[in-house]
Amino acid sequence: MSPVVGGQSTASQDNGGDGQEPITAAAIAAQVGGRLVGDGSVQIRGIAPLDRATASDLSFLSHARYAHWFAESAAGVVLVDPSFETLAGSPTTRIVVAKPVDAMLGLLARFHRREPRAVGVHATAVVAVNAVVGANVTIDAHAVIGEHVTIGDGCWIGSGASVGAGSVLGRDVRLHANAVVYPFTELGDRVVLHAGAQVGREGFGFVPQPTGVARIPHIGRCVLEHDVEIGANSCIDRGSVDDTVIGAGTKIDSLVHVAHNVRVGRFCFFAAQVGIAGSSRIEDGVQLGGQVGVKGHLTIGAKATIAAQAGVFGDVPAGETWSGYPARPHKEQLRKEAALGRLAKLLRPIEQLLGRHES
Amino acid sequence: MSPVVGGQSTASQDNGGDGQEPITAAAIAAQVGGRLVGDGSVQIRGIAPLDRATASDLSFLSHARYAHWFAESAAGVVLVDPSFETLAGSPTTRIVVAKPVDAMLGLLARFHRREPRAVGVHATAVVAVNAVVGANVTIDAHAVIGEHVTIGDGCWIGSGASVGAGSVLGRDVRLHANAVVYPFTELGDRVVLHAGAQVGREGFGFVPQPTGVARIPHIGRCVLEHDVEIGANSCIDRGSVDDTVIGAGTKIDSLVHVAHNVRVGRFCFFAAQVGIAGSSRIEDGVQLGGQVGVKGHLTIGAKATIAAQAGVFGDVPAGETWSGYPARPHKEQLRKEAALGRLAKLLRPIEQLLGRHES
Amino acid sequence: MSPVVGGQSTASQDNGGDGQEPITAAAIAAQVGGRLVGDGSVQIRGIAPLDRATASDLSFLSHARYAHWFAESAAGVVLVDPSFETLAGSPTTRIVVAKPVDAMLGLLARFHRREPRAVGVHATAVVAVNAVVGANVTIDAHAVIGEHVTIGDGCWIGSGASVGAGSVLGRDVRLHANAVVYPFTELGDRVVLHAGAQVGREGFGFVPQPTGVARIPHIGRCVLEHDVEIGANSCIDRGSVDDTVIGAGTKIDSLVHVAHNVRVGRFCFFAAQVGIAGSSRIEDGVQLGGQVGVKGHLTIGAKATIAAQAGVFGDVPAGETWSGYPARPHKEQLRKEAALGRLAKLLRPIEQLLGRHES
Repeated sequence: MSPVVGGQSTASQDNGGDGQEPITAAAIAAQVGGRLVGDGSVQIRGIAPLDRATASDLSFLSHARYAHWFAESAAGVVLVDPSFETLAGSPTTRIVVAKPVDAMLGLLARFHRREPRAVGVHATAVVAVNAVVGANVTIDAHAVIGEHVTIGDGCWIGSGASVGAGSVLGRDVRLHANAVVYPFTELGDRVVLHAGAQVGREGFGFVPQPTGVARIPHIGRCVLEHDVEIGANSCIDRGSVDDTVIGAGTKIDSLVHVAHNVRVGRFCFFAAQVGIAGSSRIEDGVQLGGQVGVKGHLTIGAKATIAAQAGVFGDVPAGETWSGYPARPHKEQLRKEAALGRLAKLLRPIEQLLGRHES
Repeated sequence: MSPVVGGQSTASQDNGGDGQEPITAAAIAAQVGGRLVGDGSVQIRGIAPLDRATASDLSFLSHARYAHWFAESAAGVVLVDPSFETLAGSPTTRIVVAKPVDAMLGLLARFHRREPRAVGVHATAVVAVNAVVGANVTIDAHAVIGEHVTIGDGCWIGSGASVGAGSVLGRDVRLHANAVVYPFTELGDRVVLHAGAQVGREGFGFVPQPTGVARIPHIGRCVLEHDVEIGANSCIDRGSVDDTVIGAGTKIDSLVHVAHNVRVGRFCFFAAQVGIAGSSRIEDGVQLGGQVGVKGHLTIGAKATIAAQAGVFGDVPAGETWSGYPARPHKEQLRKEAALGRLAKLLRPIEQLLGRHES
Repeated sequence: MSPVVGGQSTASQDNGGDGQEPITAAAIAAQVGGRLVGDGSVQIRGIAPLDRATASDLSFLSHARYAHWFAESAAGVVLVDPSFETLAGSPTTRIVVAKPVDAMLGLLARFHRREPRAVGVHATAVVAVNAVVGANVTIDAHAVIGEHVTIGDGCWIGSGASVGAGSVLGRDVRLHANAVVYPFTELGDRVVLHAGAQVGREGFGFVPQPTGVARIPHIGRCVLEHDVEIGANSCIDRGSVDDTVIGAGTKIDSLVHVAHNVRVGRFCFFAAQVGIAGSSRIEDGVQLGGQVGVKGHLTIGAKATIAAQAGVFGDVPAGETWSGYPARPHKEQLRKEAALGRLAKLLRPIEQLLGRHES
């Protein structure tokens, strides 16, 4: 996960983004409110880091530790912190701004190549006659829309994606190629499912039988609220009796598993390969690092942070940062790690003191 | 994984399940063999937990810790343990049964909405002319059935699913949307592959070459025996020389990886994100918690249980419970953890005793 | 991962491989340069381990620990180490070679059943009119090739696979069923994507907004160099500003996540379920065990090896072997583990010495 603080959003802009039209250094300086040093007529067609930029690329320098790259960079223009205005280096055209990274982030949409989109239903898509499809919807090749599905205005269903019977998609939902919405699943507005994401599967619950086990019929729902994003090949199960709910604005990376009956709050971030076992509650604003595992029937309090690869086997209070396996408060974990490291080195003297020498 | 003990299976029933027809409180009481208290004419259309139930929902109360939800629940009818028959609370219609949760599980199929199924081959499906397709088979839109494939009676191949050349599916196999059966794979009766599951891929084996490496051709099979279930986006490789086999009745959750030549016994449960490296043996009835990793060429004995996120680097004897990284018997692990926790707190006095003070 | 040292590559051979034509023991002996003992006319149709081989199978014996299987094996012919030439056992026809396993590996391609391939574009595939498709290309049923895509000579695009707009595939690329190449992704020659692999997704990067967060537009590329192999359901993100690059000859197993801006060198091996966070550098020849996690913005030096399930939170020097959580040099980790194990057993005497007895 890479949240960047303080950047200006450009995601909703639509001014170009095809990466074709060049822009001059002078125009960039004007757009970011920076001061131009050098040749304002330089034509820029892309953005790249200092070590890979060419004469038609914009680059940026914000820390002294990248100064050696700046020295030899071929970049046509560089956004620089005021302290680097006169720094020795091959790029002669510079734009001086207070926060070069933020300024660069604000320019990304300008150079972003967008996937072409044809509004309408592709001839090879299969849409049930009783499905309700809104205005300005794109349904790409070989997508399948099941019976009694509702697709809101502005949705874009990628090639090979499948929306199961009775599911409801809000407005401007984006399913990437081969994503699967199981039957009877509910997606809010602007939900994004990346390629291969699977949502609404009946969870992993069985009852013992005289011979083997039988599946528990899952009658709970799978609800993804507004602005939820689910990464590639991630899997969100539906509930058994209760619902599985992913709260509004929560962003989930790739290869994540969320089991049945889990309630995830609003504005959470789950990094890749996280796994949440059944019926746990993840409150608002929780951040889970990569490969974190959370046992079932637990609560992780609001705005808690769990470090990568931690294994959470107990409730985590709101606002705390935990790490380790089993997970404990991060500071406690660090203290214990340090103490044990020092103790390990004292093994010999301790054994001598105790008159013990294990071979 | 949520095995529920003692529930009555309803999975094979076919009495309704469309969630449309309401049922009265009196009829529910009769069905579960419970004693009705209150208004037997209340109409029920669904099942929900106490805190989310509405006047047309059945709910259940089995533990005192949920009594506060019961007090304010809007549920139309509640299944209660005999000790709660007269408990104060807004739900006035109650059905008294010895085991409310089991009674509720037995009713789930009644309220389960089933995905509509049209028997036959969809016009957009591609089925090789030499494939052998049994009776009462459903092949959904855009599914692809390769050359010389055999599809048993009653199979249901979901939209976009692919069955590679030469594969054999038993009776009543269910492939969900976009599942992939690689060529020459063998599935027994009633096998379920969830969306995006990939079975029969040639495993991850290479031989060094003068320039780089070359793949080892995999001639072993990938065999899923009767009643195996594979979760969404899970991956089961075929064998290199030996076979990869998943034993009858074994249930595997989502995002699990099973490498080449692994032999998994009967009636095992693997929770989500488990990984088994090549050539390991998992004997009958083994339960693996979420994110467990098992090194290659090991044996996990029958009915052993491995706790979530454990890393197994050695053989595990039958019937034992192991945990940790590296995994050890769970009780030993707990003892060691506790001892080290106490030792960590003794660092200062130990250092003083030894006359050492590291800064 | 199962690299096998010293085997002869047969991957590029094309002499049969349909598993249909039998071969005699004498012909096998000639092919592997071994000495035949017994009946050279025995007909062989497959290869199997000793315990599963039938009279028409070739098997192999290289270690004394499998001698009990040899004693009772039904194999028609067995490749044996010279020391086992006269070993008691039911297989009477034997081929004596210095390295039985290597000899067997060299024969695998002979018995490998190949998926049938029809060159050309299937009638149900959708190929944009402005896509450039090379010679001898196979595009299977329901595959989708987007606008301005380039497909090199000899590529094989599996059923339901999707290649997004503007992507470029080199020669002899193989996409298995339902693999997804996001728009504007670059694949070198002989790249293999297994079923359900997703490459080129915009990475997990967001900027805070007055209400929630907004995606950072990703303008970096996703580049898979020559001979890269990506396992089933693995996910490789594109870069935000920098590129994500997987170096030539690198092999990645199933369910692996590689985040944005990660640079992976040449000839690396990543076992299943590995996760690499954003902007890390993995140098040439690095081997990562299963379920290894690597934090963002780190460097793992050339030819380093990381043991399974390790969590890497700091730079790893070239050539070293690290393990554990947090990962440390493997020898140091083993020493510390051993010291702590001995200390844990000394808890009581230490407490007595210090005059402390916690209950």
